[in-house]
Amino acid sequence: MQRYFIQNEAINGKKVVIKGDDYHHIRNVMRMRPQEQVTVCDEDGNVHLAEIEEITATEVRLKMLERLECASELEAKVTVAMGLTRREKQEEVLRRVTELGASGFLTVSMERSVVKAKENSSVLERQKKIAKEAAEQSQRSRIPDVHGNFTFAGFLDFAERFEIKIFAYEEEAKKNDGTLRRILKTARGKSAIVLTGPEGGISSKEAELLKSRGFVPVGLGPRILRCETAPLYVMSAFGYELESENES
Amino acid sequence: MQRYFIQNEAINGKKVVIKGDDYHHIRNVMRMRPQEQVTVCDEDGNVHLAEIEEITATEVRLKMLERLECASELEAKVTVAMGLTRREKQEEVLRRVTELGASGFLTVSMERSVVKAKENSSVLERQKKIAKEAAEQSQRSRIPDVHGNFTFAGFLDFAERFEIKIFAYEEEAKKNDGTLRRILKTARGKSAIVLTGPEGGISSKEAELLKSRGFVPVGLGPRILRCETAPLYVMSAFGYELESENES
Repeated sequence: MQRYFIQNEAINGKKVVIKGDDYHHIRNVMRMRPQEQVTVCDEDGNVHLAEIEEITATEVRLKMLERLECASELEAKVTVAMGLTRREKQEEVLRRVTELGASGFLTVSMERSVVKAKENSSVLERQKKIAKEAAEQSQRSRIPDVHGNFTFAGFLDFAERFEIKIFAYEEEAKKNDGTLRRILKTARGKSAIVLTGPEGGISSKEAELLKSRGFVPVGLGPRILRCETAPLYVMSAFGYELESENES
Repeated sequence: MQRYFIQNEAINGKKVVIKGDDYHHIRNVMRMRPQEQVTVCDEDGNVHLAEIEEITATEVRLKMLERLECASELEAKVTVAMGLTRREKQEEVLRRVTELGASGFLTVSMERSVVKAKENSSVLERQKKIAKEAAEQSQRSRIPDVHGNFTFAGFLDFAERFEIKIFAYEEEAKKNDGTLRRILKTARGKSAIVLTGPEGGISSKEAELLKSRGFVPVGLGPRILRCETAPLYVMSAFGYELESENES
């Protein structure tokens, strides 16, 4: 069933009003009619079954029928931070980590980033749109927070608020000491931030700074993953560890 | 260090001759000179440190110095089979599952595949090149086997040779019964084939046929993954399960 994220202000009792892009989507893309049903997710992550009552020239009016039980959210709030790289790569990663259950996404201008951060707000708007679409498609009940781009120093400050702080570091890969698994086994119910590097990787100076601020280096296996693949590996590992039930 | 895959026939005792694309890469892209070193991987997965002795107008002549210990191969031979979809998506998946350690790759024309298989051999040649490049970049010692496209019936026959046979099936996702984890915990040293569907998913008829041929349906968590994301999740899970050492 088609899913739409709505702002709480669009709700009045059992009534919901949808305007803008989603109105267009319901009316012109899905060509839906009164009495057809959709699911709507509010800003608190509640999912409701709703029925279309009326489609006017500017809005869709719906009635919420029942609240649905919905357990599609990962039981850890994971924010993915990636070294700033080309726009298409960032967007692809954002789309996929949203499917894989990330709670947040941001980029960091790092020593080996080959692109400069764009100052304009259109990058952020575009990323927010991607996160919303991917959340809808993957049947999530929350849209990841998109935080934009940080300087490295700004990122270190931002990261203070997270309970788990890890970064993917190639030098650790060879050790294969199970640090990632050890951390993920304790991640349920926690907030986590995961930094992966840009194309050239994380510099040793950056690694030292990260460690001094409480970040733990983890290896992602013995093969060299490209900068767009590393975040997908980490999010998959979170999902696998927390969502594929353990026998023991 | 730059890595090149060579055919065993290019080796004569300690001497190695590199021609063609790799010759061009060494000479014109890397602009290497005699006495510089590269690593070469033979067809048996052995990795050697080699020194350039001479660069002629048509070939690079090298001397192997020593055999390197190399543990970059996943300890399960996993072949990724994906429902046939658009070429760019297949190529992206092939590239990433190679980084993530897949031993083989193929596509399957399925009920809900929206594209038709191309008969020409250029698709296969292109895929082989992608697999080789991704294996070099990710520092693997083997290139995944690229098998081309199968009919569904042909795929079922091909899959007979594998010890573990699984397919990602959305209907299983909600159960979250830990089937994937249970299987991966037994995967070390085995051959496995993993089928994921095209955009529209695997049909119930296909699912029944797969089960009748020994395939086990597994869920990949409660969110809906796009067809390009599902194989990455599975390969990441294999890597995480087999390569991130367990304490217990």
